[in-house]
Amino acid sequence: MEVTRTLARFIVGHRYADIPEAVRHEAARSFLNWMGCAVGGSRHETVERALSALAEFSGPPEATVLGRGERLDIMQAALMNGITSHTFDFDDTHLKTVIHPSGPVASAILALAERQPVTGADFLHAFILGVEAECRIGNSVYPEHYDVGWHITGTAGVFGAAAAAGRLLGLTEQQMTWALGIAATQSCGLREMFGTMCKPFHPGNAAKNGLLAALLAQQNFTSSNQGIEAKRGFGNVLSTGFRPGKITDRLGETWEIALNTYKPFACGIVIHPAIDGCVQLRNEHRLQAEDIDSITLKTHPLVLELTGKKAPQVGLEGKFSVYHSCAVALIYGAAGEAQYSDACVRDPNVVAVRDRVQATADGTVHEDQVRIAIRMKDGRILEKFVEHAIGSLDRPMSDADLEAKFRGLVEGILSPDETGRLLKLCWDVSTLKDAAEVARASVPAAQLRRQA
Amino acid sequence: MEVTRTLARFIVGHRYADIPEAVRHEAARSFLNWMGCAVGGSRHETVERALSALAEFSGPPEATVLGRGERLDIMQAALMNGITSHTFDFDDTHLKTVIHPSGPVASAILALAERQPVTGADFLHAFILGVEAECRIGNSVYPEHYDVGWHITGTAGVFGAAAAAGRLLGLTEQQMTWALGIAATQSCGLREMFGTMCKPFHPGNAAKNGLLAALLAQQNFTSSNQGIEAKRGFGNVLSTGFRPGKITDRLGETWEIALNTYKPFACGIVIHPAIDGCVQLRNEHRLQAEDIDSITLKTHPLVLELTGKKAPQVGLEGKFSVYHSCAVALIYGAAGEAQYSDACVRDPNVVAVRDRVQATADGTVHEDQVRIAIRMKDGRILEKFVEHAIGSLDRPMSDADLEAKFRGLVEGILSPDETGRLLKLCWDVSTLKDAAEVARASVPAAQLRRQA
Repeated sequence: MEVTRTLARFIVGHRYADIPEAVRHEAARSFLNWMGCAVGGSRHETVERALSALAEFSGPPEATVLGRGERLDIMQAALMNGITSHTFDFDDTHLKTVIHPSGPVASAILALAERQPVTGADFLHAFILGVEAECRIGNSVYPEHYDVGWHITGTAGVFGAAAAAGRLLGLTEQQMTWALGIAATQSCGLREMFGTMCKPFHPGNAAKNGLLAALLAQQNFTSSNQGIEAKRGFGNVLSTGFRPGKITDRLGETWEIALNTYKPFACGIVIHPAIDGCVQLRNEHRLQAEDIDSITLKTHPLVLELTGKKAPQVGLEGKFSVYHSCAVALIYGAAGEAQYSDACVRDPNVVAVRDRVQATADGTVHEDQVRIAIRMKDGRILEKFVEHAIGSLDRPMSDADLEAKFRGLVEGILSPDETGRLLKLCWDVSTLKDAAEVARASVPAAQLRRQA
Repeated sequence: MEVTRTLARFIVGHRYADIPEAVRHEAARSFLNWMGCAVGGSRHETVERALSALAEFSGPPEATVLGRGERLDIMQAALMNGITSHTFDFDDTHLKTVIHPSGPVASAILALAERQPVTGADFLHAFILGVEAECRIGNSVYPEHYDVGWHITGTAGVFGAAAAAGRLLGLTEQQMTWALGIAATQSCGLREMFGTMCKPFHPGNAAKNGLLAALLAQQNFTSSNQGIEAKRGFGNVLSTGFRPGKITDRLGETWEIALNTYKPFACGIVIHPAIDGCVQLRNEHRLQAEDIDSITLKTHPLVLELTGKKAPQVGLEGKFSVYHSCAVALIYGAAGEAQYSDACVRDPNVVAVRDRVQATADGTVHEDQVRIAIRMKDGRILEKFVEHAIGSLDRPMSDADLEAKFRGLVEGILSPDETGRLLKLCWDVSTLKDAAEVARASVPAAQLRRQA
């Protein structure tokens, strides 16, 4: 079976008109969510260090570091934007594979769109096709590939970036086949790196290397024609389970981006039901923290295994504490980056509520669920059973939810006017004459003035 | 056990004075052989296409494309020189792992030495340490890692490049630990790519990415401290067999570069015994091709499996033909790149001899051996049993052999004077005030004039 070539043929030959409107809208939602994460993460120490190390080696300054305004060569910009967009681990999730699909793909092609003219429609189309390649390749090796220790956002992401960039470069079928092969032989990224700066490095690296693959293939730099399916190709070398049909079956009939989800909260997905339930109770009963006597959770066992930290000391530890997360949900009705700052984790008011949270594992509670009981000081018991957490496929974030999340992420970086303009450009990306306009609009005017 | 940190501590703390003289000499031999391959491969279509794709994205032109004279940023130069040095598959081989050790390491640090002052002694020391890291990490996962389909020169090479570059950058133990981790999470390269331009891309990519790892670590870009040995680290994810003791045992007491070997012939190592035997018979008996009636070989079975092509049509196919290889050995007493040109493969005189070669597999003949019987037209039978092929650890190429190979590789690119000067610089590299002098001396004056 010709897997790599079949996928290549699909990517180079597909027509934008054949993408359903709902799929296009989901792509715009993914793009908007990715942009918010990238701008929001653009002040983090991770990207500061990467820039200190690498910016002096940049080639022509053709592409923007989103939210900042430095201009770098397109491969370096792809790297940096892939890093910032995953720094908070707040980007999108393809739940079937736990791939974060947008980072590798959007980072590669938005940089490319600053170098050559790309219409918004072509941009969105390439984005959808790149995510399709990436997620289908992920589907073909999941879960064995992930279980053994590969960070699938890195390993599958490089294919998505190569596919999308190759589409915009106008590669032939043969060149696209090579591009996917060059991507295959660069596929990398280890789960051991979770909790370090290398985790967000992975989607950035995938974006950069996928772009490299497409640029090499454009010059007829050859690779195998069976990079994905060969005995010693990607699928068989990087996984003990490989189902090539997951890549080629019903191409163009189903769309993986339609299965994309967005995190409402800036922490691991296992505690989202608990946060969701606490936010709902707070809002329904107009709760005041000082009136609460105790909070009792019955959760899926994984919640305590992964996020059982009772007394976090710094912001990052807060993300691994279901106790802290419920406290901020009750006090602020939110669990964004602000609620995972060092200051918030140490705030005495937050600590006081956190210490009143008790959690027990309950085998009858599914991963997407939680049972919450709040005892009030006046003796009332308030209960909530969350069947599907907000942000799941069954209860997706609304467009308005995504906008609110976006605003929270870029606050303090962009002015309200700039935020509104960038939001509008993201929603309208498919109608733009020049997709690069979005990249330029991510940079605060104050930043531009400083650089001028 | 702390594998990554132990290795990092060794690399940052080792003293040049503690390297035995014989090891230093072997390092100079490796470096010289690598340089010959890089200059010799510098006109190949593979690097032409890579340059067409990437040179326009280069940053500051601080480092030389060996043998050519274009100047690129250090990461791009590392990539290009890694590509050219492996293009002919004629570089060095660490037989225990089939790693080609010099490509990833030398390509990374020679580029770095053009950016910052590096003495020849520091250069050779870093080179030896990089090869040590690379080959020990290779030892720890070989053969399972290679057997499943990883191109070990790429996957292990990135560690060697990171280690050597990190040493020259003066990384601390913690930074070196991170550099090895950043290398681990970039480890890649598939054997499926053999026979395509992606094969030489692997050592180039390893050189570039190892350099990137060291530069990031220098800015305290964090990674796991157990990138190599963790449950989800390099050793366990990329191999079903992982023996960490092979990395840490007797560090500083044994030297992997002392086990390095060099190919005398520009083709797969399995046909080297046959070529060697034919060259010996030719020279001992002053054979003329027209006096030969037939040539009979008894070879290890792998020879016919891998190189059984009876009627090659182009140069590259000639490398997979034991028949063609014996013919040129008998006619020219050599099997360098010139003997694997398209013209040579099609030369009627060569074809005439090739058609008189018969080969049969013989299970009693070892991989390193061959039995040859030549029947002359005058009825004589000339026989030769090769016990160990030239270039093996048991019968290494002499310094003079390496010089002759070097001259053959750079012929037509460098003048005899330039060749002599470059050879001398390679032999004397450890005494140079500025290691970068070697890189500059690889560029023919004619080329420099054309660019001026």
